[in-house]
Amino acid sequence: MHKKLFIPGPVEVKEDVLAKMSRHMIGHRTNEASELQKNITKKMQKLFYTNNSILLSTSSGSGLMEGAIMSCTKKRAAVFSIGAFGERWYEMAINNGVEADIFKSQWGKPTDPDEVDKVLSSGKYDLITITHNETSTGVMNPIEEIGHVLSKYPEVVFCVDTVSSAGGVKIEVDKLGIDICITSSQKALGLPPGMAICTFSEKARKRAEGVKNRGYYFDLLRLYKYIQKKDHQYPSTPSISHMYALDYQLDKILEEGLENRFDRHSTMANKVREWAKDRFQLFADEKYASNTLTTVKNTKDIDVSDLNKKLGKKGFMISNGYGTLKEKTFRIAHMADTNLNDIVELLETMEDILKL
Amino acid sequence: MHKKLFIPGPVEVKEDVLAKMSRHMIGHRTNEASELQKNITKKMQKLFYTNNSILLSTSSGSGLMEGAIMSCTKKRAAVFSIGAFGERWYEMAINNGVEADIFKSQWGKPTDPDEVDKVLSSGKYDLITITHNETSTGVMNPIEEIGHVLSKYPEVVFCVDTVSSAGGVKIEVDKLGIDICITSSQKALGLPPGMAICTFSEKARKRAEGVKNRGYYFDLLRLYKYIQKKDHQYPSTPSISHMYALDYQLDKILEEGLENRFDRHSTMANKVREWAKDRFQLFADEKYASNTLTTVKNTKDIDVSDLNKKLGKKGFMISNGYGTLKEKTFRIAHMADTNLNDIVELLETMEDILKL
Repeated sequence: MHKKLFIPGPVEVKEDVLAKMSRHMIGHRTNEASELQKNITKKMQKLFYTNNSILLSTSSGSGLMEGAIMSCTKKRAAVFSIGAFGERWYEMAINNGVEADIFKSQWGKPTDPDEVDKVLSSGKYDLITITHNETSTGVMNPIEEIGHVLSKYPEVVFCVDTVSSAGGVKIEVDKLGIDICITSSQKALGLPPGMAICTFSEKARKRAEGVKNRGYYFDLLRLYKYIQKKDHQYPSTPSISHMYALDYQLDKILEEGLENRFDRHSTMANKVREWAKDRFQLFADEKYASNTLTTVKNTKDIDVSDLNKKLGKKGFMISNGYGTLKEKTFRIAHMADTNLNDIVELLETMEDILKL
Repeated sequence: MHKKLFIPGPVEVKEDVLAKMSRHMIGHRTNEASELQKNITKKMQKLFYTNNSILLSTSSGSGLMEGAIMSCTKKRAAVFSIGAFGERWYEMAINNGVEADIFKSQWGKPTDPDEVDKVLSSGKYDLITITHNETSTGVMNPIEEIGHVLSKYPEVVFCVDTVSSAGGVKIEVDKLGIDICITSSQKALGLPPGMAICTFSEKARKRAEGVKNRGYYFDLLRLYKYIQKKDHQYPSTPSISHMYALDYQLDKILEEGLENRFDRHSTMANKVREWAKDRFQLFADEKYASNTLTTVKNTKDIDVSDLNKKLGKKGFMISNGYGTLKEKTFRIAHMADTNLNDIVELLETMEDILKL
């Protein structure tokens, strides 16, 4: 029995989008491939409100996170962490010999823009990483305020992980001054996992020119130069199946209308949050609660694994808490092409099972 | 109009295999995902005649090539190159600050086992990379003889790029003493691009333990440890679609029978080589000509681009020469699920067009 996914990725993917994954292969050195990749670029630029370049990577989002910090840190990176994925970014720097410091917020709290200001004012850092939406805690960072702080530091490359928000929440890359904005196919974009996407600014490009060991597969400058020279073709054979599906899904997203799509996410988020507050508690500081997933504090001490097993029998799946938050929290994703009816159906089923 | 692909990747993928790419998503932290990944491992071990671990990577084969040289070189890597992909391996080392030297054979010639012996006898190197099958030149290296040389150097980690040969040619990993044997989905395995696979020996694992900067996404030791601990689940969200297709296709490959499959490749290769020798010349030294693709020397000075355009109108596609060999050579792939009838049909169509 198929389980409808309410987990923070992979998300439920619509049948017509899945069907595009089965298209016949084409050569990746053909005009047809160039055309496909060019079209994706134009549509992704709309989604990110940017004129910057778009880079595609056959990998999970983690790959481009590693590529960003490795390709564009010359001096030292300041990694701001609000949970598991922030910590991962720091690990990526250290494992590549990139100088970096990590600044952690308490789990459930956002990054404090004043702290960002203080850290950057030291002049020690030339790159900063921010997690826009933290899937472990359900916190969404105040990216506008952080962007405002960054505008004071033109020498700092601004990298943002929007893996679990892009496509569900408005992210105006150019207005916010984001140099590298990273996302992935299997979250709010509503596609199968396997492809990552980022924006790449002129500032990031210039910085990368001065960095010696940028690696290879995730060297953003190498990717950028290659697609410039080869009419949007990629150096290694990309996942053509994902490109077909992405191209198609971006059309659907733009047809729905970005604002409509963001509103739909906001409506679903409100519904889940109200429900969670009524019956449990929110794990995240509500002011910064995510619009794509909600982490619920398990104040009733329910058996989350058992709940998920019972949900499974009825064709639904949610997520247990992340890492040490397992059983202490549970997570409901409300993103991609899920709609309010799906959410209501899920919540009612949970209530039935839990006899709430 | 769909063009049947006779290019060295992406290859023609059968409809039933493509259909598996469209399956509904499942959570990557479920027993179902563990089961899927465990099944793939067992089947890949058969294909590679090995008891070593199997690592999957959502990337092209290049990713795991980078991961191998970065994760397992402690002292210095000796990169033996017989064409474009050997040169790429050297670039990967240098771009990551890994100490390495490159030893190039003339394009069209194989790696000389005696040279390997001489280089390794210096005691300077603790890792060696060999391209088994070079897609630019159509040369297949004498991997048994090279493996024999390697057996004298137990401290050297033996890495082999079998991206364009595995699944089409017998590669007995354990017998040959290969520590890291790398391949990719879109060549002789007959799948869409987007997934890479490698074997990982105990010796490679022990070496990696002593290497400091192993990177993150392609850190083979991190992947290995994670799947050990998490019952074959991967640290980043993998391409579940590719895993479904790979699992299914491996069943088909094992049903055909590995020896039958290798024989089929050999028969197709002989046919193309005889044709090429009759009408043109082979680019590769015939003793080392590849069983998965043939690079044909354009001795008749035909217009290869034009030929490919005309072939396209009849539903076929071959490859022009690689890089500087463009127009000077052309390439016909005979791998994956292509059969002798397909090859005959292609060659007859080419003869018609070229009026040979």
